[in-house]
Amino acid sequence: MTSERLTAVRQWMEAEGLDAMLVSAAPNVRWLTGFSGEGLLVIDSGALICTDSRYALQAGEEAPGIECVADGNHLEQAIVRLQAADHERIGFEAGAVTYANWQTLNERLDGALEPCPDRIKHLRAVKDEGEIELIERAATIADAAFTEWREALRPGITEREAAFELQRLMVLGGAEGASFEIIVASGPNGAKPHARPSERVIGESELVVVDWGAVVEGYCSDCTRTVLTGAPDDRQREVWEAVREAQRAALAEVRPGADCRKIDQIARDALREHDLAEYFGHGLGHGVGLQVHELPRLSQSSEDTLEAGMVVTIEPGVYIEGWAGVRLEELVLVTDDGSRVLTRAPYDLT
Amino acid sequence: MTSERLTAVRQWMEAEGLDAMLVSAAPNVRWLTGFSGEGLLVIDSGALICTDSRYALQAGEEAPGIECVADGNHLEQAIVRLQAADHERIGFEAGAVTYANWQTLNERLDGALEPCPDRIKHLRAVKDEGEIELIERAATIADAAFTEWREALRPGITEREAAFELQRLMVLGGAEGASFEIIVASGPNGAKPHARPSERVIGESELVVVDWGAVVEGYCSDCTRTVLTGAPDDRQREVWEAVREAQRAALAEVRPGADCRKIDQIARDALREHDLAEYFGHGLGHGVGLQVHELPRLSQSSEDTLEAGMVVTIEPGVYIEGWAGVRLEELVLVTDDGSRVLTRAPYDLT
Repeated sequence: MTSERLTAVRQWMEAEGLDAMLVSAAPNVRWLTGFSGEGLLVIDSGALICTDSRYALQAGEEAPGIECVADGNHLEQAIVRLQAADHERIGFEAGAVTYANWQTLNERLDGALEPCPDRIKHLRAVKDEGEIELIERAATIADAAFTEWREALRPGITEREAAFELQRLMVLGGAEGASFEIIVASGPNGAKPHARPSERVIGESELVVVDWGAVVEGYCSDCTRTVLTGAPDDRQREVWEAVREAQRAALAEVRPGADCRKIDQIARDALREHDLAEYFGHGLGHGVGLQVHELPRLSQSSEDTLEAGMVVTIEPGVYIEGWAGVRLEELVLVTDDGSRVLTRAPYDLT
Repeated sequence: MTSERLTAVRQWMEAEGLDAMLVSAAPNVRWLTGFSGEGLLVIDSGALICTDSRYALQAGEEAPGIECVADGNHLEQAIVRLQAADHERIGFEAGAVTYANWQTLNERLDGALEPCPDRIKHLRAVKDEGEIELIERAATIADAAFTEWREALRPGITEREAAFELQRLMVLGGAEGASFEIIVASGPNGAKPHARPSERVIGESELVVVDWGAVVEGYCSDCTRTVLTGAPDDRQREVWEAVREAQRAALAEVRPGADCRKIDQIARDALREHDLAEYFGHGLGHGVGLQVHELPRLSQSSEDTLEAGMVVTIEPGVYIEGWAGVRLEELVLVTDDGSRVLTRAPYDLT
């Protein structure tokens, strides 16, 4: 599989007239080689992982067919390889190389460097069958853990305890870990979309935003539910139903060829019907894979178009300062003729 | 405290002739303002956090005295502020800004940009009393969790289960979480210094490298022990004792004014006495604070000198492919007249 991916990158390099490519972004290195440690990848007619002694054995196991040097400074090793070949045009990922490292590269490889957009990130957006299977396994583990966790959830424990318990259930279920720091945001804390679990004790009849995901062989899942510890009042139910409606409207539009900006707009329009659009401050969704946030983006500034094989989140939210928050998120596979939701956690408000 | 830190940065800016500084590295933003979300910081005669709606409330709570914009694109908001003031020299962290973002900045702030070394990272290397207290609290929680974990450790569980149990005990003890992915590397897996916990079942009479740390209010601890599930054979004991001896030799040299490269050399020399130096592939240690790896570095390529208030690890290791690994790590505060070890986890091999 990794050799097909390297071939795809070499085809792009050839079209761009690049003799070599320096790959710095860790998920790109992993996707192309299987190596998940720290290091750089040089692609030319061959491929070379540049790492250090901490990762030498791991690189051999994870990327058995790929040459590896582990002598120390990653950048220095890459430069030595690139200098030896006397390349005329060497691409690098402009969004993943620091200015300081660019200065070093530029001094040593004078004139040959070409800043490139992250083509590999774009290639990664469309998943193959093996990747979809891993994401789905992660989602299944996360769903099962949440279902058990939800049944046991009672007011009186802290957000941090609740978040940890959910993580524990995912790990017991076979996850490598959580795909990001789990969010359990109760009552007014729910108004912060990226709240960190705090020492706040979850109270009675409070909305609790729960955003969690599992990792399986490096691949992430991502899901959000908003639950209530008690019976909802009218406002809680009204906002929750409005968010669910916005999510359903957006989900119905997920298919190959769909414009990501328009899907975001549909969710926003649905919330506007309830005078809630102003409380939806973030984008509607994002791709998920080796990273929990990757391409495509679904937002008002997105120019992306959905393709079969993409896996994206659909996660409208309403965040009202001093009151609470509601976010509902599904992980969705774009199929040849529409979409398939990968997350199956229960949706009950109470 | 954050205002004193901003003052220190402004003094440095004045000495360098900088009218403004764009701070991109997340731990630097947090250290200077208290804000722990995603965003940028502009420092001029005032200070401005540039973030987005996800973090607007959090920024207000964590950095109450500091101006904040949360309108969307962080870089764009920073550029708007920097353009408005018509600065002649604007510093940026060359090691924390990507080439792509530098291109955007350079187009919009033509001629005013000055790449800078990470001065704030250097300032962060020397901790104040409040920071030392937090690191020590993290270490105390991590030690207590390990002590309990160690007593319960038996062959027959997987590395992953064992690592998660240690994390659970830290969270129950009051940690925000683990300061990095805990390493539990048993038998031959111990030969990988940065092994990830696997599904491998820990066997009888195996060396197990355990590297773990806690987080308290963003501050990290870091500690390693190598334990044995059974009675040691001669080789296991010999290597373990040699690493302990190397660690003791290095610890004895920790004091203000000490040369970091020389301390690393002392540990290496001690291992050489046992013909084990070739198996010690990484540096001896590193600073710890808001990041688990920060300045100073203790290695053969380091030019750093210890100062009172620095908190560093001393962690020699021996990694023998196909056999096992031994690493022992302490977290040490450099005091006015020497050092104080902050980690107190038990040291028994068996």
